[in-house]
Amino acid sequence: MPEAEVRFTFGLWTVGNRGRDPFGFETRPSLDPVEAVHKLAELGAYGVNLHDDDLIPPGSTAAERDSIVARFRDALEQTGMRVPMATTNLFSHPVFKEGAFTANDPKVRRYAVAKTLDSIDLGVELGASVYVMWGGREGVECDAAKDLRAALDRYAEGVNLCCAYVRDQGYDLRFALEPKPNEPRGDMLLPTVGHALAFINELAFPEMVGLNPEFAHETMSGLSFTHAVAQALWHDKLFHIDLNSQRPGKYDQDFRFGSEGLRDAFYLVKLLEDSNWPGMRHFDAHAYRVEDHEGVWDFARGCMKTYLILKEKAARFHDDPDIGEALEAAKVSAIAEPTSPNGLGSEAIAAIRYEQFDLESLGAQGYGHERLDQLVNELLMGVR
Amino acid sequence: MPEAEVRFTFGLWTVGNRGRDPFGFETRPSLDPVEAVHKLAELGAYGVNLHDDDLIPPGSTAAERDSIVARFRDALEQTGMRVPMATTNLFSHPVFKEGAFTANDPKVRRYAVAKTLDSIDLGVELGASVYVMWGGREGVECDAAKDLRAALDRYAEGVNLCCAYVRDQGYDLRFALEPKPNEPRGDMLLPTVGHALAFINELAFPEMVGLNPEFAHETMSGLSFTHAVAQALWHDKLFHIDLNSQRPGKYDQDFRFGSEGLRDAFYLVKLLEDSNWPGMRHFDAHAYRVEDHEGVWDFARGCMKTYLILKEKAARFHDDPDIGEALEAAKVSAIAEPTSPNGLGSEAIAAIRYEQFDLESLGAQGYGHERLDQLVNELLMGVR
Amino acid sequence: MPEAEVRFTFGLWTVGNRGRDPFGFETRPSLDPVEAVHKLAELGAYGVNLHDDDLIPPGSTAAERDSIVARFRDALEQTGMRVPMATTNLFSHPVFKEGAFTANDPKVRRYAVAKTLDSIDLGVELGASVYVMWGGREGVECDAAKDLRAALDRYAEGVNLCCAYVRDQGYDLRFALEPKPNEPRGDMLLPTVGHALAFINELAFPEMVGLNPEFAHETMSGLSFTHAVAQALWHDKLFHIDLNSQRPGKYDQDFRFGSEGLRDAFYLVKLLEDSNWPGMRHFDAHAYRVEDHEGVWDFARGCMKTYLILKEKAARFHDDPDIGEALEAAKVSAIAEPTSPNGLGSEAIAAIRYEQFDLESLGAQGYGHERLDQLVNELLMGVR
Amino acid sequence: MPEAEVRFTFGLWTVGNRGRDPFGFETRPSLDPVEAVHKLAELGAYGVNLHDDDLIPPGSTAAERDSIVARFRDALEQTGMRVPMATTNLFSHPVFKEGAFTANDPKVRRYAVAKTLDSIDLGVELGASVYVMWGGREGVECDAAKDLRAALDRYAEGVNLCCAYVRDQGYDLRFALEPKPNEPRGDMLLPTVGHALAFINELAFPEMVGLNPEFAHETMSGLSFTHAVAQALWHDKLFHIDLNSQRPGKYDQDFRFGSEGLRDAFYLVKLLEDSNWPGMRHFDAHAYRVEDHEGVWDFARGCMKTYLILKEKAARFHDDPDIGEALEAAKVSAIAEPTSPNGLGSEAIAAIRYEQFDLESLGAQGYGHERLDQLVNELLMGVR
Repeated sequence: MPEAEVRFTFGLWTVGNRGRDPFGFETRPSLDPVEAVHKLAELGAYGVNLHDDDLIPPGSTAAERDSIVARFRDALEQTGMRVPMATTNLFSHPVFKEGAFTANDPKVRRYAVAKTLDSIDLGVELGASVYVMWGGREGVECDAAKDLRAALDRYAEGVNLCCAYVRDQGYDLRFALEPKPNEPRGDMLLPTVGHALAFINELAFPEMVGLNPEFAHETMSGLSFTHAVAQALWHDKLFHIDLNSQRPGKYDQDFRFGSEGLRDAFYLVKLLEDSNWPGMRHFDAHAYRVEDHEGVWDFARGCMKTYLILKEKAARFHDDPDIGEALEAAKVSAIAEPTSPNGLGSEAIAAIRYEQFDLESLGAQGYGHERLDQLVNELLMGVR
Repeated sequence: MPEAEVRFTFGLWTVGNRGRDPFGFETRPSLDPVEAVHKLAELGAYGVNLHDDDLIPPGSTAAERDSIVARFRDALEQTGMRVPMATTNLFSHPVFKEGAFTANDPKVRRYAVAKTLDSIDLGVELGASVYVMWGGREGVECDAAKDLRAALDRYAEGVNLCCAYVRDQGYDLRFALEPKPNEPRGDMLLPTVGHALAFINELAFPEMVGLNPEFAHETMSGLSFTHAVAQALWHDKLFHIDLNSQRPGKYDQDFRFGSEGLRDAFYLVKLLEDSNWPGMRHFDAHAYRVEDHEGVWDFARGCMKTYLILKEKAARFHDDPDIGEALEAAKVSAIAEPTSPNGLGSEAIAAIRYEQFDLESLGAQGYGHERLDQLVNELLMGVR
Repeated sequence: MPEAEVRFTFGLWTVGNRGRDPFGFETRPSLDPVEAVHKLAELGAYGVNLHDDDLIPPGSTAAERDSIVARFRDALEQTGMRVPMATTNLFSHPVFKEGAFTANDPKVRRYAVAKTLDSIDLGVELGASVYVMWGGREGVECDAAKDLRAALDRYAEGVNLCCAYVRDQGYDLRFALEPKPNEPRGDMLLPTVGHALAFINELAFPEMVGLNPEFAHETMSGLSFTHAVAQALWHDKLFHIDLNSQRPGKYDQDFRFGSEGLRDAFYLVKLLEDSNWPGMRHFDAHAYRVEDHEGVWDFARGCMKTYLILKEKAARFHDDPDIGEALEAAKVSAIAEPTSPNGLGSEAIAAIRYEQFDLESLGAQGYGHERLDQLVNELLMGVR
Repeated sequence: MPEAEVRFTFGLWTVGNRGRDPFGFETRPSLDPVEAVHKLAELGAYGVNLHDDDLIPPGSTAAERDSIVARFRDALEQTGMRVPMATTNLFSHPVFKEGAFTANDPKVRRYAVAKTLDSIDLGVELGASVYVMWGGREGVECDAAKDLRAALDRYAEGVNLCCAYVRDQGYDLRFALEPKPNEPRGDMLLPTVGHALAFINELAFPEMVGLNPEFAHETMSGLSFTHAVAQALWHDKLFHIDLNSQRPGKYDQDFRFGSEGLRDAFYLVKLLEDSNWPGMRHFDAHAYRVEDHEGVWDFARGCMKTYLILKEKAARFHDDPDIGEALEAAKVSAIAEPTSPNGLGSEAIAAIRYEQFDLESLGAQGYGHERLDQLVNELLMGVR
C-alpha cells in the first residue's frame, strides 16, 4: 500500500510494545524482532530502527550478540528492509535513574558513553546513518540536586565524545537530538526543539548534530510541532523525525499517527512534502493497550495510510483554485519579499523610516483566514 | 525597603495597568507616568521601563513628544530613577493584527521597523542600554496563512535592520528577544527561550542579541523557567529578565512575583544570585483587577519584598549544614568533574569504553532527593 | 445552505465581536444588532441570542430601551428569526470585579440579581425559553479572599431567586448553567460540567436548572467535551450548548466550530444527532482578529457548514459495514447488557461472585480499537 | 513527630512503590507489608491502607490468603496500626484493559464486581470503614468504542451492586469514588470531583457513596484541588482524601505532599482544619525513583511534617492581626450574609429589584487582595 517513494520506518520497540503502563501489566506477548522485520516488510515499510537493548538483551555474551545480529541481518536481507537509524537505551536500567550523560556520578556518565559507543558500532554494522540521542533521564524533580549549567557542560561533553569517536572510526553517521519536556523526569534538559537547536551551537562538531523532533513531545507542552519542524528545517537541522500523536497537557501517549490532531498532522505532512525533505518517515508510536497482535499490525497500517492520505491532500491543496485565491487574499506569498529591498545599509534603513504609512487602511484590510482555514478543513474532510 | 544592591525595575505598563481583560472593562483610572516614577522611587525601585506608546500617545506631534519627554526626564532627574530598558508596542494597533516584523504585507513590516527605530531613539535618549523585542503578533491561528520559514527570514531581517541602525548610530544598546508560546496569537514564532536562542545564531550581528525570558511565558507551556534561564546563562545570552508568576496551562496571568510557584521563584532567585547576574530585576506583572490604586502599590511592594526574602533564603541555603550534607549525598558537585578527564582523543575514549562498571551497585545507590527537597521546602517555609 | 431541520443560532456578541484582545485594540467597527439579524437570516441561521447589554447599552432610559427593543423585534419579524436564549452580562462592569452572585459585598450581589431579573424580562419578551447563567466573575485569584462554601451558598441563593421570580411570573423559562474553569478569574466556581451538575442537586428548584456546556471551556482543562455532554444527557440536564473550538491548555480561544479538534467535533455532533437532542445548535465563537466584516460572515458560514458536514458523516458512520464490523469486534453494543441480569438482590450478587472466570482468555482478547479508530478517521477525511 | 490528633495513613502501595515507570525498570526491592506497618508505626503514622493485591498476591489459595492476613493482623496488633480504608485493584491485570465496571464485555464486568466483593470482605476483616473506588480503566482512547451513557449506567450498576452487598452483609462501610481525568486511559469517566458528585445522585443508595478526591488528579487538569474539596464538603460528601502533589498538565506524578504547589497545599490544609474534617490524612504518593529504601522513609516523614507545618501556619493565619485586617478590607465575612435577607418570596425579590445601586462607587472600591495574598505568602515563608 505505501507508495514506493515514501520511506516508512518503525522502531522495533513500537510494534514490539507489550502494553505495559504505569498502572497495568503487559497485555501482549513479546515479539521476535525477526518476525517484526518480516511483518513490517509485508506491510510495505522501508525499514526498522532500534535501541541496542531492543535487539540484544543486556548481559548477552559477545557470541550471543553476534548470533542475534547474524539472524537479524538475515531477516533484513531476505526482506530488503533497512536499519536507517539506531539509538541507545540510556533510561531503563536503574543505573541511569539519576541521569546518563548528565548523571552527577562520573562513573555513570562514563558507562553511558561506553554503552552508546557499543551501540553506535551496532548501528553502523546494521547500516544506520542517523544516530538518535534521547536523554530520557537527563533531568530532575528536585532542582537543588542538579547544577544545571554544569549539566549542560556534561551533556555537550557526552555528545562531543560520541562525535569524536565517529570521526575516529570514519563512520558515516550523524547524530539527532530528541527533545522532550518531561516524563519520565519532572523537568528534562533540552525540553523543546528550540533548546536542542541552541545547544548544538556550543558543541565541538556542530555540523554532525541535528534534531529528531517528536510530534508527541512538542505537543505535550502545547507547542506547535509543525512550527518546531519548520524552524529545524530553517536551521538545516532536521536529521530525523518521530511521527505519532498526542493530546496537549497529558502523559506521553505515543498514539497512532493522525489519531489525534488531524489538522496538525496535515500541516506537518504538507511541510515535509513541500520542502522535499529526504529523511525517513519514522513512526515512534505504539498500539493501544487493548490490542492483541492483530491490532498491532492494524496500528502500523494506519500510521502509513494516514500519512499517504494527508500527502495526497497536501498535493490537492496546491491545486485547489479556491484555496489559491484565499492564499492570495491572505498575501501569503508576499512574505518572501524582503522588508528592506536594499539591504541593511543606512540609506536603505532611512528609506524605510521616512516612508509614509496609511495606518488606517493598512489596519482595516481583512486577511480572509476564516475562509482559508475553512477551505483547508473541507479539504481535510474530503468534501472538496 | 529594597536593599541598595538589588536593582528593581517596573514597566510603566505594569503599575499603569488599568484592569481591563477580555471580559471586562477598566477598573482603575489611568496613571500619569510621572506619578508612576515618583511613587516607584518612593517604594525603592531603581528604574522604570517603557514601550513607546506607554509614554507618548500614538499620533502625538513632534512638539508634543518633546514636551512629554522633557517632563518625564524631569521626573527621572528629581527621583534619580533610570530607564534601563525600552521596547516597542508592535501589537496593539490594528495595523499589526497579522504580524509586525513577520506580517505578510511588506508595508506593515516596514512600518514596524520604522516605529521600532523611532522607539530606539527614544529609549537611548532616556538612557536605556537594553532594548526588548516581544513579537506579540508574530504568529498565526491558520497555519496555511503563513510560510513559516520565510517568516523566520523576515523576523531575522527585522532584527538585523535594528542592529544595523544601532551600529550606524553608535548607540550602546543590546537587544533582548522575549519568547512566548501563544496569546494573543494561536501559536507564536520563537515560542520558548530555546527557540529564540537558536534563532540568534542565524542573525547578522548575533553578539548584539540575547534573551529577555519571562517567568509567565515559559510557565504557560509547563516548562521550567529556571531551567530556561540557566540555559540562557550557559549561552551567555541572559540580557534582561521579566519576573512575574503564572499557573501552567492557563491564560497569560502576569501575577505578582512569587504569588504562584513559590518554589520555582526561589530556584530562580537562587540561580540569578548564585551566578552574580548583573542585570535588572524587572517586574512585568500587574495588580489583580479587583485592586484600586492603593492595591497597585501593594502589588509593587510585594514583588520586591518577595524577591528579597527569597534572596536571603538563597544565601541561607548555602549555609545550612543539613542541606550541605544532602547536597553531598546527591553528589551535586561531582557534575563539575569531566566525564572524560583526558578529553576527546581516541585514547581517552578507549579508556572510558574499557572501564569496568559495577552496574548493580551503581544502580542501587540512593541519592537522597526526598530529604534534600524537603529541606529546601522547610527553608522556604521558614522552619529552618 | 443549513438544512431546515438543524436550528443554528449565534450570539449577537459573536458576530458582533470587534477583535479586541488583552494586547490589542478593536480591529472591526461595531455591528448593528439589526444588521446581524438580517445577515444571519440570509445565511440560514434560525435565531440569535443575546446578553442584555448586547442589545441595550447600559444606562439607557426606559424609553430608549423600548425603542431599541421595538426596532429589534421588527427585524426578527421581518426575517422570521427567533431569540431562543438570553443571558445577563455580569462580568464587564467594574462593579462585578469581585464577583456577582458570589461577590463578598451583598450590595453587589443584590445588584447582580436585579440586573438578571431585568434581563430575564427582556429575554422572555423576545421569546427566549432558555436562560443561560455564566458566572464570569464568580471566582478568585487569592484563595484567602473567598469563603468557598459560603460562596456556593450564595451562588445557590442567586439561582434560587431567579427561579422563584420566573415561577412567580409564570414564565416558561429554564436556566442553563455554563461552567468554565478559569479566565477571567484565576479559578472559577463550578469549573466543569460535573461541578455544575452536582450543584443543581442542592437548589430549591432543581428541575428548572440544567447545563449549557461549552466546547472551549471543558477543552481548556484538557477534558473531553463529548464525555461531558454525554454525562449531561445522562442526567437529562442538557438544556443548551455552546459550540466553538479550542486548544487544550491555552487562553479562551472561541474559534470557529471545528477549526481545532475535528475528531472531537465529530463525536460531539454524532452524540447530539444520535440522541436526537432537540436543542439549538448555538455557536459561541468569534472570527479571528485579522478578519474584516466579510470574514465575520465567512466565519459564521463555516461554523454551520462544518456542523452539517459532520452530521452527514455521523449518518454514514452507522451505514458503513466495516465500521459496523469493527464495532462488533469491540463488543460496543454489549455494554447495554446489565452486569447483573437479575438485579441487586443477594442471590443475583452471589451468582456473580461464584461465576468462573477464565482470566487468561478474557485478558488475551483484542478489541480492535486501532482499526475502528482508523476507520473513523478515514470517514472523517472523506476517503470512505 | 506527628501530633496525636492528626491521623496520617499511607497506602501499602505508596511506601512499597518500587520506582518502575513507563521508561524504566524497578529501582528498589519489594517491601514486605509487615515491614511497612512496623516502619510507618515507628514514624508516627496512624494506619495503612491497601488494595487487595498489595497484600495478597493474585492467585493465592484460600489457605495462603488466610496465613498472609493473619501475619499482617499480627503486625497491626503489635503496632496499634489501623486499616481505615481498603480498595480493589481493577487496573493492573490484562483482563481489565478495556474497563472493569464499564467494560463492554459483561463477563469482565462481573469479574470486576466479584473481585471487589472479595476485597470488601478483606477490608472489613481488617477494620476498614471506607472503601475507595478508583476506576483506573473506566475510559477510552477511541470514542467510537464506548457508548458513554450506557457506560455510566453500568458504572452506576457496579457501584449499586457493591452497596447492596454491603447492606446485605450489614457491614459498616461507606464508598468513596476517586475521580481522575486521564492516565492510564486517554479520557476517563468521572474525570473530576464534580462529575463524581453529580453521578452519586443517580445511584440506588446515594447516602452510602461519597468522594475520595486526589490532589494530583484535579491538579493534572489545572483545576483547583482546594475548590474541589470545598465543593465536596459543601455537598457533605468528603469521605476520604488522597494527599500528594503534582504539576498541572503533566503525567501523574504522585509527588511528596507539598513538594509542588506549596500555597495550594496550605489552603487545602487550612480548609480541612478549619472545617474540622474528621477523616484520615491519607498520602497517595511515592518516593522519587532515584531513592533507595532510606529515601522512602524520608519521603514518608516529609509528607507528614509538611502537613503539620502547614497546619500550624493555618492556625497562625487566624491569629495574625494584619491578615485579619486584610480579610476585613476584602469583606470576606460578608459572604455569609444572605443576598435576600427575606428569602425567596415575591416581596423579597421586589425589594432587591428596586433597591438603588451606586454602581460607580461600588465599582471603585478596592478589595486589597494583593496585600492579603502577600501576607499569606509571607506567613508561608515564615517571615511573619
